[in-house]
Amino acid sequence: MSVLVVGSVALDSVETPFGKADNVLGGSATYFSASASLLAPVQLVGVVGRDYPIGDLEPLAKRGVDLAGLECAEGESFRWRGRYRHDLNSAETLETSLGVFSHFRPKIPAQFRDAPFVFLGNIDPRLQLDVLEQVSRPKLVACDTMNFWIESRRSDLLALLGRVDLITLNDAEARQLTEEANLVKAARWIMARGPQYVVIKKGEHGAFMFSHGSVFFAPAYPLEEVYDPTGAGDSFAGGFIGYLARSGDITEANMRRAVVYGSAMGSFAVEQFSIGRLMEVGPADLARRVRDFHRLVSFERDIDA
Amino acid sequence: MSVLVVGSVALDSVETPFGKADNVLGGSATYFSASASLLAPVQLVGVVGRDYPIGDLEPLAKRGVDLAGLECAEGESFRWRGRYRHDLNSAETLETSLGVFSHFRPKIPAQFRDAPFVFLGNIDPRLQLDVLEQVSRPKLVACDTMNFWIESRRSDLLALLGRVDLITLNDAEARQLTEEANLVKAARWIMARGPQYVVIKKGEHGAFMFSHGSVFFAPAYPLEEVYDPTGAGDSFAGGFIGYLARSGDITEANMRRAVVYGSAMGSFAVEQFSIGRLMEVGPADLARRVRDFHRLVSFERDIDA
Repeated sequence: MSVLVVGSVALDSVETPFGKADNVLGGSATYFSASASLLAPVQLVGVVGRDYPIGDLEPLAKRGVDLAGLECAEGESFRWRGRYRHDLNSAETLETSLGVFSHFRPKIPAQFRDAPFVFLGNIDPRLQLDVLEQVSRPKLVACDTMNFWIESRRSDLLALLGRVDLITLNDAEARQLTEEANLVKAARWIMARGPQYVVIKKGEHGAFMFSHGSVFFAPAYPLEEVYDPTGAGDSFAGGFIGYLARSGDITEANMRRAVVYGSAMGSFAVEQFSIGRLMEVGPADLARRVRDFHRLVSFERDIDA
Repeated sequence: MSVLVVGSVALDSVETPFGKADNVLGGSATYFSASASLLAPVQLVGVVGRDYPIGDLEPLAKRGVDLAGLECAEGESFRWRGRYRHDLNSAETLETSLGVFSHFRPKIPAQFRDAPFVFLGNIDPRLQLDVLEQVSRPKLVACDTMNFWIESRRSDLLALLGRVDLITLNDAEARQLTEEANLVKAARWIMARGPQYVVIKKGEHGAFMFSHGSVFFAPAYPLEEVYDPTGAGDSFAGGFIGYLARSGDITEANMRRAVVYGSAMGSFAVEQFSIGRLMEVGPADLARRVRDFHRLVSFERDIDA
């Protein structure tokens, strides 16, 4: 089954304690696609400017990312410049230039409208809602968001919550949205407004998936080298939704596995700048890392417990 | 099998966003004992002043904590006053008064010297080393430490590392001791200096146990109400070592289970001030929480992985 993703396609310039990269492929839809396409066919909807190195997206197309929904508009591409210091958990934004992204109006191509899995990347909730008007009854709709929309588009975001099955957001965003310091309470607050599943990402501290009556946790993989955390959250989402699409199964047991596939893809994403590592890894690497995750948390309960 | 613990026995005054408690039982040896005694007999070595409400320790004695090594010295007891604001991960110390603890010289009673499990709570590494001179070949020796000793007693601490099987410390302390930002590298640095196991506690973000060729992770339990984080680390250590002592088994598989028992006891500790909750819970509560931990991280690998 295929996954439709709507989000940003950008050029990133990033500096970390380990090096720097200039004008490399970035954006939520790019990371998501690079990750999900290892598991399922992906249909991308986004916008770039005339300056975008479209040819650099060729490897994505080769891996099954349909770029028919990538609009090329008059103007400059979305560019982000950021820096990570020693705390790799938080990026410092040095410059954001929205370019053509500021006028983005997602148009879902006819052949994408029946996608069974939809991921609404981090864009204006009004546009996320607009995408839902254009698609027909997906099996699962997931969305991401960020502090900017929580502040500036609160009522639209609340309307969106009523129409998605799952939301991914980080711990700070969950606290900001719900005004609850406690994540269990924050998740309950969100579920009361629509989503059946709430995935709270804690960066290097792993991710929780809350649902009614159940909570699942997957740690982040303890890597020795983290080069660039950019895109880890979207790569997580790509692995997660990609796995669901591959299996077509949205039972609780499979959703748990999907979180682990998401964590595995997130752990690859940070091993190199941009989507470099995501495009290198194959199914055997992914299977190996999922096994490593299983070993990382496995313990046998004893007879008492 | 019994556990010998050497550490502080204090009076804490604590303020959290949820309330305050004055002059309640505290100290590393107290939390450790309250936790471990649910699983195994405990032998406590520490010191208090004449002002200590010794009678309040009676419930510990009833639960199998042998207080024969608790010295009552002329002077004031160790008192700590602290506050947690909304970030429950870090305490703000308002006042520390060492009292008789500043002259503490642990004397291990003859009947405690064969204890198969020894936990050296967070005291001067010179005293921790001195305790090891007084005991005969334990099956497992674990120690804790803190930033103050890492700064002021570095060479003694390094000598201690050569003589313990396991060390517990938090992520900030691991980074400070090793000057490695990455926890995997930090753990390797420590293991190269002696301990076969390194347990890195990350507060609400769980705990890693590193050993040669293996890493295990247990999340902190996602509680809806955290009243007071004081003593969570020592309660973790108590559950961990207490479980090992109960089973007498220090294989890797059992050490993993022990981390989960430690996490379970840590999660109880924070539900009330002081050792209140630790003294309330029974074996059935513990077994239930261990089951909940298992459910929290369980996923079935699929055929591909």
